[in-house]
Amino acid sequence: MRKWECVLSPDESDPVGVERGQGQGPFVIVCEHASSTLPQSMGDMGLSEEARLSHIAWDPGALAVARLLSARFDSPLVFQKFSRLVYDCNRPPESPASMPMKSEIYAVPANEVVDGAERLARTQALYRPFHAAVSTLIDERTCHGLATSVITVHSFTPVYFGKSRAVEVGILHDADARFADGILAAAAAERRHDVRRNEPYGPADGVTHSLILHGISRGIPNVMIEVRNDLIADQAGQEVMAGYLSELIAEAIGQQDKNKKTFVNVRSH
Amino acid sequence: MRKWECVLSPDESDPVGVERGQGQGPFVIVCEHASSTLPQSMGDMGLSEEARLSHIAWDPGALAVARLLSARFDSPLVFQKFSRLVYDCNRPPESPASMPMKSEIYAVPANEVVDGAERLARTQALYRPFHAAVSTLIDERTCHGLATSVITVHSFTPVYFGKSRAVEVGILHDADARFADGILAAAAAERRHDVRRNEPYGPADGVTHSLILHGISRGIPNVMIEVRNDLIADQAGQEVMAGYLSELIAEAIGQQDKNKKTFVNVRSH
Repeated sequence: MRKWECVLSPDESDPVGVERGQGQGPFVIVCEHASSTLPQSMGDMGLSEEARLSHIAWDPGALAVARLLSARFDSPLVFQKFSRLVYDCNRPPESPASMPMKSEIYAVPANEVVDGAERLARTQALYRPFHAAVSTLIDERTCHGLATSVITVHSFTPVYFGKSRAVEVGILHDADARFADGILAAAAAERRHDVRRNEPYGPADGVTHSLILHGISRGIPNVMIEVRNDLIADQAGQEVMAGYLSELIAEAIGQQDKNKKTFVNVRSH
Repeated sequence: MRKWECVLSPDESDPVGVERGQGQGPFVIVCEHASSTLPQSMGDMGLSEEARLSHIAWDPGALAVARLLSARFDSPLVFQKFSRLVYDCNRPPESPASMPMKSEIYAVPANEVVDGAERLARTQALYRPFHAAVSTLIDERTCHGLATSVITVHSFTPVYFGKSRAVEVGILHDADARFADGILAAAAAERRHDVRRNEPYGPADGVTHSLILHGISRGIPNVMIEVRNDLIADQAGQEVMAGYLSELIAEAIGQQDKNKKTFVNVRSH
């Protein structure tokens, strides 16, 4: 069996995208599944073109929505330039899902046998630099007195294992629900979309890794937004959805100010 | 007012101590408050010698006990070489306690006014390298198939704000109580010491930062051990306490095997 090895070429050597790094807005926006690009050394990972372009490789539309939120709130964006099939940056190396052997209905040949050296190479090439970039950015803001809340932006497939999903937007959280509560309250008052708490995934699915690392460990507010990807398949849909999410987020911030809650843009302890 | 600046000299340039890094045992042992040493550039931080050697600067005895546990379980130890008064590595930069203006009854002149640049300098010189070292070590073990549980070792002062503390050993945890439960069950069966859950500190005091970063974010078992420092003031006391803690830890591992619980040395997800 062929062994795949992740070796980033010189022009791939910085796998982390940072935009609007000096933005003075209240958020750091994170997009772990921004790209379906495979490192050249990984070839096609043994996958069909269909699989390589499908939701198993990335979150279609998520980066576009994240960029619009970054612009709307003048807030930095950090995104991963390579496919989660090589390393899923929303998972620790302890999780089999960090380099999945199978994703939904697709076997991933390049991940069937991954020895320790290759596992570590991918962790060091993709995962550590990604989270170091997020940590460094938040450190810099914090030390200069600019409080941060973390928003991670994802998309999910409308049909999963053959079953349709009615939920349109998921607002996900782990132990700290402050920010999610604010957004859910705004969505409930508005009812334009089917917005649900911790659907179609939640903490038990291991999807809150980035929230724990960058939000909960620091005591700063954090939320994960999941959008059904058929709603953000083109630019028009992305702009509508980003506009909708911006309203919810702005409303959540406004309610916070009124209620003297402090889940956004205020030191939490 | 004098402004203190943390600039590590060439011979201070590696602030992170790692011992038994190749140890194949089931733990990574972390000691954030191992040392009372100040970087040369920080002078005396405006403190009396008494204050500089007191528990506000470090956890007396903790490193010695951590080293004995590291040897007993052939497990790596990571410790901070500089005083927590410069940067407390068990706190994120968001926490005022990361560079405390006051600690118990002592004002800390060098921390009264810390501007953004200095705050960031200390964060980058001491905090980031420390946690990067722990993360890298666990990554390496995990990728090579060696599961890890995290133990952080601390000590606390017997008299705090003039009040005596009866508790002798604190077993602290955050959302994941698996490892702590095992140790507490062993201690309850044994009763040699006054051992308590989440005393004299607990998650609400912000002391579980390292546990969240390195344990909870990965889904691996983790526990923080706090020993009253009068019990580990000399080598004899340190050896007795390390022996006692080793028994509790070994008992917890044994019970785990019997109960098919998986809080130590087994992939948790």
